[in-house]
Amino acid sequence: MKWDDFLQRSGEWLKGNGPDGDVVVSTRVRLARNLSRFPFLTVANPETRSQIEQYVRGRLQEAFPTRDFQYLSLMRMPMIDRQLLFERHLVSREHAVGEGERGVAINSDETLSIMVNEEDHLRLQAMRSGLQLDLTWEGVDQADTELEKRLSYAFHPRFGYLTACPTNVGTGMRVSVMLHLPAAVISKQMDKVLQTLARLNYTVRGLNGEGTSPVGDLFQISNQATLGKSEQDILSEMRKVVPEVLKFERSWRHKLLHDEPRKVEDKVWRAYGILKHARTISSEETIELLSALRLGVHLGLLSHVPMAAVNELFVFTQPSHLQKIEGKALDPEQRDVVRAEFIRKRLP
Amino acid sequence: MKWDDFLQRSGEWLKGNGPDGDVVVSTRVRLARNLSRFPFLTVANPETRSQIEQYVRGRLQEAFPTRDFQYLSLMRMPMIDRQLLFERHLVSREHAVGEGERGVAINSDETLSIMVNEEDHLRLQAMRSGLQLDLTWEGVDQADTELEKRLSYAFHPRFGYLTACPTNVGTGMRVSVMLHLPAAVISKQMDKVLQTLARLNYTVRGLNGEGTSPVGDLFQISNQATLGKSEQDILSEMRKVVPEVLKFERSWRHKLLHDEPRKVEDKVWRAYGILKHARTISSEETIELLSALRLGVHLGLLSHVPMAAVNELFVFTQPSHLQKIEGKALDPEQRDVVRAEFIRKRLP
Repeated sequence: MKWDDFLQRSGEWLKGNGPDGDVVVSTRVRLARNLSRFPFLTVANPETRSQIEQYVRGRLQEAFPTRDFQYLSLMRMPMIDRQLLFERHLVSREHAVGEGERGVAINSDETLSIMVNEEDHLRLQAMRSGLQLDLTWEGVDQADTELEKRLSYAFHPRFGYLTACPTNVGTGMRVSVMLHLPAAVISKQMDKVLQTLARLNYTVRGLNGEGTSPVGDLFQISNQATLGKSEQDILSEMRKVVPEVLKFERSWRHKLLHDEPRKVEDKVWRAYGILKHARTISSEETIELLSALRLGVHLGLLSHVPMAAVNELFVFTQPSHLQKIEGKALDPEQRDVVRAEFIRKRLP
Repeated sequence: MKWDDFLQRSGEWLKGNGPDGDVVVSTRVRLARNLSRFPFLTVANPETRSQIEQYVRGRLQEAFPTRDFQYLSLMRMPMIDRQLLFERHLVSREHAVGEGERGVAINSDETLSIMVNEEDHLRLQAMRSGLQLDLTWEGVDQADTELEKRLSYAFHPRFGYLTACPTNVGTGMRVSVMLHLPAAVISKQMDKVLQTLARLNYTVRGLNGEGTSPVGDLFQISNQATLGKSEQDILSEMRKVVPEVLKFERSWRHKLLHDEPRKVEDKVWRAYGILKHARTISSEETIELLSALRLGVHLGLLSHVPMAAVNELFVFTQPSHLQKIEGKALDPEQRDVVRAEFIRKRLP
């Protein structure tokens, strides 16, 4: 796989054609796994860490031998490339900026990525467009089964899978859905949503995962507890909670469009006008405006703009993507200019 | 003259092709005159006021008998039409909203308007595109000469023309130039300009004359003193002062474009993007954005937009113009929607 591939294509989750795609951007399921015959990374020295990486990489190549699957080693990878993997949601921020031997295996439609030596020895992640809890779960579960044939996982009969951080012990599973809730935000209903989710033990994060605050009306909600619950428990809770949030957001969109159609149209078209004409634009403003565009497309206000174009702009306007596209390092000011140019060219 | 004419055409001063049009929107010269055989309006009862109107109207029709010249009586005119004359800069706000018998004579390219029974019995006003002090003065002076053949003005050999308000005694002349100073505003240099003008005894007002604060980087500067100075004194002072302000504004435009070309381009193109796509827009925001567009056209950044289109939008997006175009009364919210629609259609 060449780096150019990342710039020519986009992951399946960016296609924007998944079920309930008006509100759910993507579904993600990740499993944390550790090997029984190696110490946790928290206590492993560089040499052990290197051995783990080498060993897991070998098993990954046996389990996924096709050309469709690529293994990338991160330790000697330039920062800009690691950052691109993060912007692509294929590795965590910690994995991108971290140190020591580590890597990631990725399939070509980016529905599956397996991080090696992140916080745990293995982090398996499946991701899909829209609300696809079952399909996404099956994707990561299959990969897990394939690997389990070749690896001995640290597993405790009572506690379940053992993990570096106690919050992940049990199933080691985290299910996340990225929700686009512009109507709830515009109508100042988000506090209500956030309180309800907190009471139900769900964590809410921003677009770029842990430690990021919400921008562009995008909220990533995920289960907190992994201990004492089966994978199916976690999924079936999600199956109940997410539709409630969808219903809420949709009713507020309906209300907005009914009560203040001009206000909504205006917000959407102004966002379009700025994106289509600005000569310099920050990453944050881009996300805010794309959020309005996304709403507009789903409300049928911007019929000439395909959803995939909007979703791709969310990803391709990030710093590393822009620099890879330009083929050179750019300071923040230059990036703002290149970003504006890129958007003008790509937005129909 | 039908009202439709006002919506089909625009005044000469809106053509935007006058000298120094990059900074000077228009030049205006007005003369205040009163009749010797009637009392000032401040002490005239309605009957006298009516006699004055009738008398002056007769002399106006003798002096300007062509079809090119029209006399409009304001007392029984609907408010929206009076407001349109004000938006057109053909009558003052006071004349539009006032009471009692009064009128205005207007020629077809709107370079000359003569208000009857405003503050004084007569207010003659000539207006032209760009910086045209001499031509504008000649326009109003010729009209004054024509009228003086038929009217006996209140004139005192020592004080000059007598006026209702002592500030106008003498020549009764006020020369105003409407300046567009966006670079001075962006570069936070306006305080300096305003202080200098105040020291030189010039008054600075907003787009819509007396009592309005500057919007859209538009500043109307005019002479304060009329007593003890000849018409030529006032004009020759203007001839010295205005070019200094032009030089200042131009040097800041040059500096802006040199130091921060992206910032200027971005400001101009964002304004264009919003005007071209908004679905509802206030009058004030429109003026601010048109101001950026005007700068862009003169800096050569928006080559496909003719100056006349921008100047016309300044006038045609005002409340009465919009309502006359739509042919019905509109509340402010409806106007904002119609305004946005009108701009999208008219802006190339």
